[in-house]
Amino acid sequence: MEDRFKLLAERFAEIADLNAASAVLQWDQETYMPVQGCAARSNALATIQTEAHRRLVSDEVAGLLDAVEGWARARGEDSFEAAFVRTARRDHARARKVPGELVAELARTTSLALEAWQAARARSDFAAFAPHLEKVVSLNRRKAEALETGERLYDALLDEYEPGAKTSEVEAAFRVLREGLVPIVREVVAREGAVSSAVLNAECAEAEQFELCKEVVARLGYDFERGRLDRSAHAFTTTFSVDDVRITTRVKKDFLPSALYAAVHECGHALYAQGIDKRFERTPLNDGASLGVHESQSRLWENLVGRGRPFCAWLLPLLRKRFPDAFGRCSQEEFYRAVNKAGPSLIRVEADEVTYNLHVLLRFELESALVEGRLKVSDAPEAWNARMSDTVGIAPPDDARGILQDIHWAAGLIGYFPTYTLGNIMSAQFYAKAREALPELEAQLARGEFAPLKGWLGEKLHVHGRKVSAGRLLQRVVNGPLDSKPFLDYLQRKYAELYGFQP
Amino acid sequence: MEDRFKLLAERFAEIADLNAASAVLQWDQETYMPVQGCAARSNALATIQTEAHRRLVSDEVAGLLDAVEGWARARGEDSFEAAFVRTARRDHARARKVPGELVAELARTTSLALEAWQAARARSDFAAFAPHLEKVVSLNRRKAEALETGERLYDALLDEYEPGAKTSEVEAAFRVLREGLVPIVREVVAREGAVSSAVLNAECAEAEQFELCKEVVARLGYDFERGRLDRSAHAFTTTFSVDDVRITTRVKKDFLPSALYAAVHECGHALYAQGIDKRFERTPLNDGASLGVHESQSRLWENLVGRGRPFCAWLLPLLRKRFPDAFGRCSQEEFYRAVNKAGPSLIRVEADEVTYNLHVLLRFELESALVEGRLKVSDAPEAWNARMSDTVGIAPPDDARGILQDIHWAAGLIGYFPTYTLGNIMSAQFYAKAREALPELEAQLARGEFAPLKGWLGEKLHVHGRKVSAGRLLQRVVNGPLDSKPFLDYLQRKYAELYGFQP
Repeated sequence: MEDRFKLLAERFAEIADLNAASAVLQWDQETYMPVQGCAARSNALATIQTEAHRRLVSDEVAGLLDAVEGWARARGEDSFEAAFVRTARRDHARARKVPGELVAELARTTSLALEAWQAARARSDFAAFAPHLEKVVSLNRRKAEALETGERLYDALLDEYEPGAKTSEVEAAFRVLREGLVPIVREVVAREGAVSSAVLNAECAEAEQFELCKEVVARLGYDFERGRLDRSAHAFTTTFSVDDVRITTRVKKDFLPSALYAAVHECGHALYAQGIDKRFERTPLNDGASLGVHESQSRLWENLVGRGRPFCAWLLPLLRKRFPDAFGRCSQEEFYRAVNKAGPSLIRVEADEVTYNLHVLLRFELESALVEGRLKVSDAPEAWNARMSDTVGIAPPDDARGILQDIHWAAGLIGYFPTYTLGNIMSAQFYAKAREALPELEAQLARGEFAPLKGWLGEKLHVHGRKVSAGRLLQRVVNGPLDSKPFLDYLQRKYAELYGFQP
Repeated sequence: MEDRFKLLAERFAEIADLNAASAVLQWDQETYMPVQGCAARSNALATIQTEAHRRLVSDEVAGLLDAVEGWARARGEDSFEAAFVRTARRDHARARKVPGELVAELARTTSLALEAWQAARARSDFAAFAPHLEKVVSLNRRKAEALETGERLYDALLDEYEPGAKTSEVEAAFRVLREGLVPIVREVVAREGAVSSAVLNAECAEAEQFELCKEVVARLGYDFERGRLDRSAHAFTTTFSVDDVRITTRVKKDFLPSALYAAVHECGHALYAQGIDKRFERTPLNDGASLGVHESQSRLWENLVGRGRPFCAWLLPLLRKRFPDAFGRCSQEEFYRAVNKAGPSLIRVEADEVTYNLHVLLRFELESALVEGRLKVSDAPEAWNARMSDTVGIAPPDDARGILQDIHWAAGLIGYFPTYTLGNIMSAQFYAKAREALPELEAQLARGEFAPLKGWLGEKLHVHGRKVSAGRLLQRVVNGPLDSKPFLDYLQRKYAELYGFQP
């Protein structure tokens, strides 16, 4: 039986190789590829991804999985072998359940939808995008039906990005969150002028900003022998292997936080990916537990650490040294307040810590309602605008800055949005535990000693990769299920103090 | 039948995709990959290359080739279809003739040989490398036997890199070449002090050198929308598609020609690759006619253009502007003479235009004798040193600077070396024709007008890709076969004038 397992492992190692190659090709496309290289790159990616898919759904893999499943389970639920076979089975089964014809139609549809979306957004013309969205929704519904996961149709889509999560649980957690967030937003709006971010708009040379990002992520513990930082239009993290995890950032000349916090965010993802057990290399276990858990790590470093007073205290001398004109006369308190300015805004990716999740909540509500037939595509813009007014407190002047702003739906991604907020919720749960475990944490951060926190996260979360499910991981680390309260507590305390209202 | 051809084309398109992916992975490895990414990269490359090979030798491809061969030929020898099937058949047949077991053993052997070679070179210990070379030679002999190409055993190895070339013809051309080169070297040695390259040893900031390289290759016609220039330890050109051809150079702070001429050399390769007919994209025709023809293009731009008086006249003002300290007082004549200083040296890759080919000739003689059993591995260092003394006029003080200097044999590459010199020979044949066709050529070069030459080469050579064989291409463009005379004439004229002897 061990021979069969070895063969299975070999097959998945090759699939991992093909996926790594795909990732390299995509990384290159976003960073260094010359403009005209695009057409050939699409072909190369399609061929490699098709081959990876073919191998994943193959009868050989099916047979090997059947053969070793009992044997692996007998080695104990927590054994490497059982976890390997569990995740391999999941990937295989999901890939096999969706008919090839549906995969192909989704690819064709989203390719056209992406084009239509770009044009529609440019002209703020939702009607031009609507038929494409109709098709994306209906194909996602068919996909959900084929996957037969959970009671609710949306469960199957959510499960792709957040394995094991249930729509109803997410709804419950998000309800609590909204009820807590809306009052904070109201207080912040009422005191709009209490916090100024003017100091952040000074010009800082782009190359120097990039060097600062390198310095900061290296200090956080990102290993440049096993990764690199580059520039790209949208920041991202990508994993080729435990020993090659790359991050990117984007740089805006007159807004330093753009590059800095994107780099810290991606560094959070990368510390996770670089911290996974090396024995999981070339197996389905070499990944995060879920997108939500991954996002919890990026947001923990970006917000709970990066936008906290201790980090700002440590950072400011570095800024003063590199950008004396911009930050020479800025006080710690001024900087801390500036990077935490909150308030209603139209665009999710530019939103602050408080309002960000309201943007996500509305997307989750809309997309689950669309998939489950409670909302028509034609009614979606109105629903969007109404919810924006209600919860964020600002009404989009047009669909370009409303329902057309995100790429996700055009790309066929339904079920993805909630993982952003699940990540934020979990980040506070994990951070609260880290503070308990590391009583000196804040003092350490203020001194630029990030190793204790990185070490704690590594041991509690990162090393386990995909071996332990998101639900079990949370249970283990925080002794409880998903809970919005720590996150709300954190925001209430922080923003009450910042804006001067009663928490 | 057209349907079968379409299917065959699809299969080769996918093979091209896999090869392109491989090339991207290798490019990344040489340019940006973090040090520890190496192990995972080897795995990814092995998986992709194995898959490409599996598809190339598949029974499906064999069947399709059999089916369409007659139909394609009936469309005319010069048709796209006939050329496609001819090259596809060649690649398929060669890959199929070499048994999988031999391919695997070659891979294992060269992997160990490369390691052993590095260690042996560091300690100048040929004995430690000898058993590995024995094995490489014997496996190459088996490969040559399996390929059954030509009368001589070496023919089969040569044919891999220079399709259609015969060992005996190469020997004949090289004999003429040596007879012409040795006297030039003697004259140069006798007047050693006549040319000084001292001006080239001034320090020039590395970043500025790199910018100069970009400027120069852009002026030569390299299309940065379809390529890019990066730094790497060894300069190279790589093709992902007609629209994504990348080059690299290396930079030495105190020797500008290193970066500059490497960039011009690779630019010559890249102009070829960017100039191939776009209809050949994703077919076996999207490649050069042979390595020799490819090298003729790189050497034509590097030496016949780049080390000529008109180019130096155009270049010097650029150098003065970027490096006023280093070149502000340098005259055109001083610069021209400096970049053309010749003389015996130990290392091939650092050799000048005159002696370079003597280094290649000796490698060709030794490797063909090894493969064909006329020389024992144990006698090879002595043979190397004797020939170095005889022809180049300098004896290696140790094997590190002698027989151990090149990576090729350790990498299993036997039959590759002669293409360097075939390229030099052809470069002079092509350039002589270009001068006839473009009477204003030298004046144009002096004004930095490179488009006419690039256009002529593009039309006569580049556009045809691999559709026309090296032999036919040469015949078409210069109305004759391989001929060392134009190259010898060029060197004699140039060096007689430089060093002041009777040509």
